Amino acid sequence: MEANRTINASVSPKGSLEVLSRIEVEKLKQIGENGLYPLFRRCALAILNTGSKSDNAKAILEAYPDFEIEIIQQDRGIRLELHNAPANAFVDGEMIASSREMLFSAMRDIVYSEAERSRRKHDLESSPGITDHVFQLLRNADVLHAGESPNMVVCWGGHSISQEEYQYSKEVGHSMGLRGLNICTGCGPGVMKGPMKGAAIAHAKQHITSSRFLGLTEPDIIAAEAPNPIVNELVILPDIEKRLEAFVRVAHGIIIFPGGAGTAEELLYLLGILLNPKNQSIPFPLLLTGPKSSEPYFQQLNEFINDTLGFEAQQKYKIIIDDPEQVARVMANSVERVKQYRRRQNDAYYFNWELNIDLSYQQPFIPTHENMSSLDLSADLEIHQLAANLRRAFSGIVAGNVKESGIRAIEQHGPYQINGDPTIMRPLDKLLEAFVQQKRMKLPGSTYIPCYQIMQEVDQKPQT
Amino acid sequence: MEANRTINASVSPKGSLEVLSRIEVEKLKQIGENGLYPLFRRCALAILNTGSKSDNAKAILEAYPDFEIEIIQQDRGIRLELHNAPANAFVDGEMIASSREMLFSAMRDIVYSEAERSRRKHDLESSPGITDHVFQLLRNADVLHAGESPNMVVCWGGHSISQEEYQYSKEVGHSMGLRGLNICTGCGPGVMKGPMKGAAIAHAKQHITSSRFLGLTEPDIIAAEAPNPIVNELVILPDIEKRLEAFVRVAHGIIIFPGGAGTAEELLYLLGILLNPKNQSIPFPLLLTGPKSSEPYFQQLNEFINDTLGFEAQQKYKIIIDDPEQVARVMANSVERVKQYRRRQNDAYYFNWELNIDLSYQQPFIPTHENMSSLDLSADLEIHQLAANLRRAFSGIVAGNVKESGIRAIEQHGPYQINGDPTIMRPLDKLLEAFVQQKRMKLPGSTYIPCYQIMQEVDQKPQT
Amino acid sequence: MEANRTINASVSPKGSLEVLSRIEVEKLKQIGENGLYPLFRRCALAILNTGSKSDNAKAILEAYPDFEIEIIQQDRGIRLELHNAPANAFVDGEMIASSREMLFSAMRDIVYSEAERSRRKHDLESSPGITDHVFQLLRNADVLHAGESPNMVVCWGGHSISQEEYQYSKEVGHSMGLRGLNICTGCGPGVMKGPMKGAAIAHAKQHITSSRFLGLTEPDIIAAEAPNPIVNELVILPDIEKRLEAFVRVAHGIIIFPGGAGTAEELLYLLGILLNPKNQSIPFPLLLTGPKSSEPYFQQLNEFINDTLGFEAQQKYKIIIDDPEQVARVMANSVERVKQYRRRQNDAYYFNWELNIDLSYQQPFIPTHENMSSLDLSADLEIHQLAANLRRAFSGIVAGNVKESGIRAIEQHGPYQINGDPTIMRPLDKLLEAFVQQKRMKLPGSTYIPCYQIMQEVDQKPQT
Amino acid sequence: MEANRTINASVSPKGSLEVLSRIEVEKLKQIGENGLYPLFRRCALAILNTGSKSDNAKAILEAYPDFEIEIIQQDRGIRLELHNAPANAFVDGEMIASSREMLFSAMRDIVYSEAERSRRKHDLESSPGITDHVFQLLRNADVLHAGESPNMVVCWGGHSISQEEYQYSKEVGHSMGLRGLNICTGCGPGVMKGPMKGAAIAHAKQHITSSRFLGLTEPDIIAAEAPNPIVNELVILPDIEKRLEAFVRVAHGIIIFPGGAGTAEELLYLLGILLNPKNQSIPFPLLLTGPKSSEPYFQQLNEFINDTLGFEAQQKYKIIIDDPEQVARVMANSVERVKQYRRRQNDAYYFNWELNIDLSYQQPFIPTHENMSSLDLSADLEIHQLAANLRRAFSGIVAGNVKESGIRAIEQHGPYQINGDPTIMRPLDKLLEAFVQQKRMKLPGSTYIPCYQIMQEVDQKPQT
Repeated sequence: MEANRTINASVSPKGSLEVLSRIEVEKLKQIGENGLYPLFRRCALAILNTGSKSDNAKAILEAYPDFEIEIIQQDRGIRLELHNAPANAFVDGEMIASSREMLFSAMRDIVYSEAERSRRKHDLESSPGITDHVFQLLRNADVLHAGESPNMVVCWGGHSISQEEYQYSKEVGHSMGLRGLNICTGCGPGVMKGPMKGAAIAHAKQHITSSRFLGLTEPDIIAAEAPNPIVNELVILPDIEKRLEAFVRVAHGIIIFPGGAGTAEELLYLLGILLNPKNQSIPFPLLLTGPKSSEPYFQQLNEFINDTLGFEAQQKYKIIIDDPEQVARVMANSVERVKQYRRRQNDAYYFNWELNIDLSYQQPFIPTHENMSSLDLSADLEIHQLAANLRRAFSGIVAGNVKESGIRAIEQHGPYQINGDPTIMRPLDKLLEAFVQQKRMKLPGSTYIPCYQIMQEVDQKPQT
Repeated sequence: MEANRTINASVSPKGSLEVLSRIEVEKLKQIGENGLYPLFRRCALAILNTGSKSDNAKAILEAYPDFEIEIIQQDRGIRLELHNAPANAFVDGEMIASSREMLFSAMRDIVYSEAERSRRKHDLESSPGITDHVFQLLRNADVLHAGESPNMVVCWGGHSISQEEYQYSKEVGHSMGLRGLNICTGCGPGVMKGPMKGAAIAHAKQHITSSRFLGLTEPDIIAAEAPNPIVNELVILPDIEKRLEAFVRVAHGIIIFPGGAGTAEELLYLLGILLNPKNQSIPFPLLLTGPKSSEPYFQQLNEFINDTLGFEAQQKYKIIIDDPEQVARVMANSVERVKQYRRRQNDAYYFNWELNIDLSYQQPFIPTHENMSSLDLSADLEIHQLAANLRRAFSGIVAGNVKESGIRAIEQHGPYQINGDPTIMRPLDKLLEAFVQQKRMKLPGSTYIPCYQIMQEVDQKPQT
Repeated sequence: MEANRTINASVSPKGSLEVLSRIEVEKLKQIGENGLYPLFRRCALAILNTGSKSDNAKAILEAYPDFEIEIIQQDRGIRLELHNAPANAFVDGEMIASSREMLFSAMRDIVYSEAERSRRKHDLESSPGITDHVFQLLRNADVLHAGESPNMVVCWGGHSISQEEYQYSKEVGHSMGLRGLNICTGCGPGVMKGPMKGAAIAHAKQHITSSRFLGLTEPDIIAAEAPNPIVNELVILPDIEKRLEAFVRVAHGIIIFPGGAGTAEELLYLLGILLNPKNQSIPFPLLLTGPKSSEPYFQQLNEFINDTLGFEAQQKYKIIIDDPEQVARVMANSVERVKQYRRRQNDAYYFNWELNIDLSYQQPFIPTHENMSSLDLSADLEIHQLAANLRRAFSGIVAGNVKESGIRAIEQHGPYQINGDPTIMRPLDKLLEAFVQQKRMKLPGSTYIPCYQIMQEVDQKPQT
Repeated sequence: MEANRTINASVSPKGSLEVLSRIEVEKLKQIGENGLYPLFRRCALAILNTGSKSDNAKAILEAYPDFEIEIIQQDRGIRLELHNAPANAFVDGEMIASSREMLFSAMRDIVYSEAERSRRKHDLESSPGITDHVFQLLRNADVLHAGESPNMVVCWGGHSISQEEYQYSKEVGHSMGLRGLNICTGCGPGVMKGPMKGAAIAHAKQHITSSRFLGLTEPDIIAAEAPNPIVNELVILPDIEKRLEAFVRVAHGIIIFPGGAGTAEELLYLLGILLNPKNQSIPFPLLLTGPKSSEPYFQQLNEFINDTLGFEAQQKYKIIIDDPEQVARVMANSVERVKQYRRRQNDAYYFNWELNIDLSYQQPFIPTHENMSSLDLSADLEIHQLAANLRRAFSGIVAGNVKESGIRAIEQHGPYQINGDPTIMRPLDKLLEAFVQQKRMKLPGSTYIPCYQIMQEVDQKPQT
């Protein structure tokens, strides 16, 4: 963060000129209850903080108390006036194009989400209504391209990974880029950046100028995982569940690299959906991969899945160790099969309408201490429901680790308490312990203090 | 109409690929009360009927009773399946690109208008709310381009004009096109087409490939004035008042060619707005022009304005007879002044936010017989209010002449009765009489039977 | 010519930025024997004289004695400084883009032709050498597009035609443009302009932005037939024979509209080539067409072909009277067959390599009085050779009518004398007489004094 | 080289469709004395050998004895049929776009060079003639863009460098890319690749899609330094001297990274030119830079320049150690000054016409044993001339190290003998010795056997 060096600047969009109505500009400037300014300021700060070495959203947001952003309507469109902005996003006083465009993407998404939200209310309580909402947000962000063949590979994995794992993710990205595949990630550092970087070089070699590096984020995570500047399409979904749905609806295939609690959340979310009998026949390529050194990690994860969701869940993915070329080749072939399938079904290439996502996966989960401790993690749940609740548990841990609200809650009330059947709690505890040992919970440099306690005994005492 | 030759075809958008959600597709297919199908079918039929020699919306719509349009969601986006479509829009069995794109524009606007309408309801009762609505519709149609210098000239005038007047409008368009100006019209034949055609050739000479030929229409007029295929941006506004507001908000200048009742409606609408004291200082270029033979016409119109709205109103426009080069030169210079003004005011180039439009100009006027006969046209109204009501009177006459609903109403209840002070009624009667004489009411070939009666005596007996 | 109004201006290329070496700039500035300045000045003057009502090259060139053009090398490329330029090509003091680009095309072609000419010398005496030269000139002008499907229709016909014929040529262009066809002409007024204008409107309707309006000319004809500004690709070939070869090598089909001596020259040139037995199996669409009023003209021409070249020659073309749609449909289908043929033969789409053109059609014919009077026009020549010599006779007449050198020669030595067998001379005389009657020899307004005498009797006395 | 795995493939250009005449195709196929096939095959093989770990041209060329390349003319342009091609340039059987385009660039340059060469002959003996030739070659390769601001930075340095130096060159490229600068190199691995890779990522961040990664090479070096696939514009100049002239004419600034004999050759070439009094006032940014570990290297080089060319020569460059940001900032500012200067002088941005290059720097130097031993390296030469001869000495050493002809000559006749004044020979010997120690002569893995002997004593015995 270079000692919080700041800068004042005035920026206009170049690529995607944004046009706002007077009413929209007013709302963006408002501070009060319905005002959008605090949200916009927060996202803008996160975006400008690109390249930051911290993943503590609270710390980041507090580091620039004087940062302000003004929205000015003028002859050729909208201009943003920045005061005391983090200097990272500038080169010789001029903002990096990518950061500039992301600011306007954030503005666009916040204005639109708000309008949509106020419009729909009751729609957002039904499953098709939520899906339609996710669709509208993505369409408004111009992310759904009707004319393109399937080529979007979502890469999930940790923001805090080893140099070797980072290098490996670049190589996988490079091999996929050579095959014309695009990359979508959660748009922070680590695995969110590596595959994009590799693919960018590969696309240069393939003379592809329409590269898509899609970042999907949400207001609470963006500060902890600032979008890396290779992202050239940014969408801020309103919450974690809509972001997860956006991932699986736009993906033509997903690769999971080593990661921590967030990665586990993503894997459980997807497995839960794929285990839904209604989704049985839909092809959905899912690869788990990492360098040789990450082999134990994947063995652990695989075991955890086996212990909790069972053998059937394991059939939904394939693990490939230390072979970027092979990963890319398998993914390219699988994406081709997705294309054949969609064509046969007359389903859209750009949005996976067919995938059934239960309301339990769509409804926002707020990780209060109460919600966390009352999660039902019993062994006799349907697999599908168990996956949903395990997903929520990990979601809470992510919040406690890096989100501003979560960190504050932990500061106030101590660690979350997670209860459940010992047959579930034991493997869970083991996995989390391994994440901590492998330093996958937080960016290196800090000592990790767990934000959770696993309660697995009858008397509900903390185990660790 | 070549004896209603019809064709079956399947079309996909090429230029602007459209993406619809499942819920939107469902609504477009529905026939019932909230279903959008009848409206979409009607607009589609109008678009395909391009080049038709008729301006009787009712007749056109009845001429193709078997026409149907199916919306199909498929791998690469949306496809339309047409059954028994008018053959005019096809060349060797393939649809003309312009017509094809317009079909998808209609689909886009109908879906969006509906969504907006259901969202806003009460917003649509305030003046800023209606303006915001117009803005949203235009933005969604991608008509508001933030990066462009002012260059959009709206051309108003009749759909039924003489060959000489048509030729003249082409020359004006050519001279404007050579100066890099774009054209916006109501998108039918006659004056709605001539300037676009002239400008298209001029743009070819100037190697301008980003030509904009913008057509603004509404569901009730589109059938009578089918979009000509030079239009490359089509927007269907929900009603006549929003269409008029769209015209004056996107215009950087307006030219009025000879026309009939519709043209008078437009002139009165604009004068009423410009006479609003709050709009005093806003530059708004307005030229009236035509060939030598149209000089009497403009004298009459000028006199009518003088007799009803007075001297001040006359200062809002300039009449240039028989000099296309001069028209273009004056307009280009005036548009440049608009640009300077907007820059000074930091007002957007792409939308005239500053113009004050009273709610009385924005609220839909439904020309029932009752509404028409109760219009207040008394000499002691404020000029501004008188203009508003005169505008409504002409609006009703247009409906009675060419719109489906209007024609049906006249068939049932006889001509509209229009009452008012003799000092207003006399010039009105005279002007209308002249329109009839000059065959400006309807396309030639039919005998015109007036759809109105001017009542100007104390005892309210019809005058003619 | 608006009383020779002139203008000073400074122009830089926008579309196709030209880059010249210092040596090339020097050559363009030189006036002496090897200097290119006089040629460049002459072509530039012709281009700027667009829209002129005269077709007398000598008069045009003498009308602007003070016109000068300076070539300036500067930071961003080449700039041209014009002094006393004809005002026609300017709008409010700024040069029309099309004219501006054509100036730079002329510069490019003159520099390149010169370099090529000095390089090749002896190559230009063999048939393959000349063809390669034509190819190099077209490639350097970026006219040969490897990726495009066949779509280039050459339109031949008179620059001096009736309003009805002009209108008809526009309609044919419109019908062809709707089918995606591009237009190539000799780039002057009349038939050289009409089809381009019609196609420009049709391409706007079809949203085609890559329209090609190719003009092929040569330094001696350009002044008499100034390129119309719809031309967006201009190539100046070094002489009439290379221009004719360029026409037939880039054409995927040819349409002949009514015209005069130049049109007859073109028809004879093409028939001569198509009658070559080696070209028997190559499909080459050739349509003759005009409005109803031109029917007698085509009957005469058809008869002349019958009388001189015979029945076989008549099989090489098809005459369609008064049916633009049909012309376009037949041409589009024929071009499709050309495409199939080229694909089968693995022949290039962009250059008709397979067509055999005899050296006698390639070698420049200089219409001195001696060369004209010694043309062998005897009935016992091979058809193919007779066509070549008849072509030359018409070529001389065109020169005597409109080219600067030809007009000067006639001024000095009186009319050309053309000798030959009465069986050839009679139909020739009759055809020429008809051209004079129909005012196809010169633009209207002047009385035509023939520049030739047909000698057909044994004692070689002039006939007329 | 993966055990010389080979592949058969058929490729067509996509980006820049090439169009060849029949005569050109014939020449490319010819094997005999004037045939271009062997040269084309050789360059093609080098291009396909991308990513090879060898820099021994002879070995590379001998490794694929069965490689053949066929040129096929077809409907849509030219197609190349490859037999037994190195598999490196393919992904899943399809050629990487960059390699494919380079093949067609090689074809284009070979055809054009040949045509130019046969045309000019005597021109190539004068200095302006040679410069014009270089200009023509670059223009034909479409490398001279008239509309662009100065932004081309040439990066020189070794192909055999340490990982740390490679990483550093990437960072410099990244910092320059963030400032919108483009990169030109000799287009092999090492320093020829690093800056391009860094700039490619930076351009992605800046949303620059018009990145230029220009590679300049020549037929003898291309095999040893295969173009890396980030190169998106490749030009094959006919020999080393024209390549060097191309570098300095297109450069707006030059950066020298650590390297070996070739880098020394380039530095001496440029210093010799800049020391020419006629070039005194021309700004020419020249930076020497490397990571901390390379500091001794630059001290040595700096000392060598001091010992041989003196203090004045040292003023022509600036050394910056271990500060990529600073290098980029200084270069960006200096390029801006070049722009100002060119604008003031009305000199082209795209070609440094003003720079005076003596014929002694332009004439090809053939490093036969005789030419090498008779190089005049005496201390009483003018600095400018001494630099020229030192440049030639290094040029010979490069040939002996990596070029096919040089390696063969050394195999036959033993090492080159280089003679001169001890005051020159001593520093030269020291520098070369250091290159050997630092393994800068050849790619690692092989033991380096010097291809030269430094003779510095009166009796001309070898020193080492």
